[in-house]
Amino acid sequence: MIPCADSRLAAQIAFIVEIDKLKTILRQTLLIDSSRRENDAEHSWHIATMAFLLEEYADDPVDVGRVARMLLIHDIVEIDAGDTFIHDEAGHEDKDAREQAAARRLYGLLPKDQAAAYSALWREFEDRQTPEARFAHSLDRLQPLLHNFETEGGTWKSNAVTADKVEKLLPRIEGGSGRLAAYARSLIAEAVARGYLAPAARNASGSG
Amino acid sequence: MIPCADSRLAAQIAFIVEIDKLKTILRQTLLIDSSRRENDAEHSWHIATMAFLLEEYADDPVDVGRVARMLLIHDIVEIDAGDTFIHDEAGHEDKDAREQAAARRLYGLLPKDQAAAYSALWREFEDRQTPEARFAHSLDRLQPLLHNFETEGGTWKSNAVTADKVEKLLPRIEGGSGRLAAYARSLIAEAVARGYLAPAARNASGSG
Ligand SMILES: [Ca+2]
Repeated sequence: MIPCADSRLAAQIAFIVEIDKLKTILRQTLLIDSSRRENDAEHSWHIATMAFLLEEYADDPVDVGRVARMLLIHDIVEIDAGDTFIHDEAGHEDKDAREQAAARRLYGLLPKDQAAAYSALWREFEDRQTPEARFAHSLDRLQPLLHNFETEGGTWKSNAVTADKVEKLLPRIEGGSGRLAAYARSLIAEAVARGYLAPAARNASGSG
Repeated sequence: MIPCADSRLAAQIAFIVEIDKLKTILRQTLLIDSSRRENDAEHSWHIATMAFLLEEYADDPVDVGRVARMLLIHDIVEIDAGDTFIHDEAGHEDKDAREQAAARRLYGLLPKDQAAAYSALWREFEDRQTPEARFAHSLDRLQPLLHNFETEGGTWKSNAVTADKVEKLLPRIEGGSGRLAAYARSLIAEAVARGYLAPAARNASGSG
């Protein structure tokens, strides 16, 4: 515990110390040099930076500072709830309940006004109704595609993911940016052409 | 190389891929759980998040989105120039030249308008003349203090750093936030009281 006479600042520092744990929550994605798996803090840094760099591709005008603020804290619930692999359907079943409890505990460390504001910002991200939330999701889904392409199929290969599964991520990218979704689509096609990604499984053809 | 018909987007994606290397640039600071050293991407995520959380402590009003944007990219030059330990005086001699060259190469990957804007933003950080740059420096210096306190003196002990050296960081924190500097000062005193940090060396007393 860090001493502090000012209880508001003490609560803020306690939160800042607690979220250091995000640096130890591993994702499936490999770093682009393939040396190890990426963690949530690194992922959050990367996509918040992408928000500023790629703002021009958002379909609706966005407050990009707000997009970055949202992306920096969107994964904090995973400190308690863990990372659920995007193609793990079983793990997604109780994901919501686990993440709600995590949000209560973690954002609850902050002073009341900030606890409310940050919980609401996280809910806004999850609900995907605002231009900022939709663009944030575009970036959150585009970044691992770049990693999988650059590592010549890293997570796709090790998890036997096929192109039809990866294509299911496209609507989420499209929700915030048609141009980034078009780019992602071409990247998937190129990944299949290069053998980084297996084509759609036969029994998947014909389905939605 | 990631294929892209649009050369502007191709340049932006090339930069986004290149800066993934920031995740492999290690700092001296330990994670708060002491499990390993922190990297620059994690550090940048942490302090950009702190910018939003601690905005109220900035002495001058700041555009906090701009502070975050600055902090997210402020260490990118270290991909080429490496991290220079804050108490390493020899390493600081050619730091400027190495970082200038790094900025030219790295920001130069971006489309011309963004290359200029991001180089300027990095220079603004380095020059510490604007309220945003001064507050960014406050956070950049406060965060490792929190880590060193929470790890019961981690980097201070392993590098035989004494309190007078750590106190030299206070003006940088004070430049952007008197209240965060006062907090940092009390943290240093408490660290000495608890034996996390050695008091000033005798031959240092009496000097500025
Ligand atoms: Ca995410």
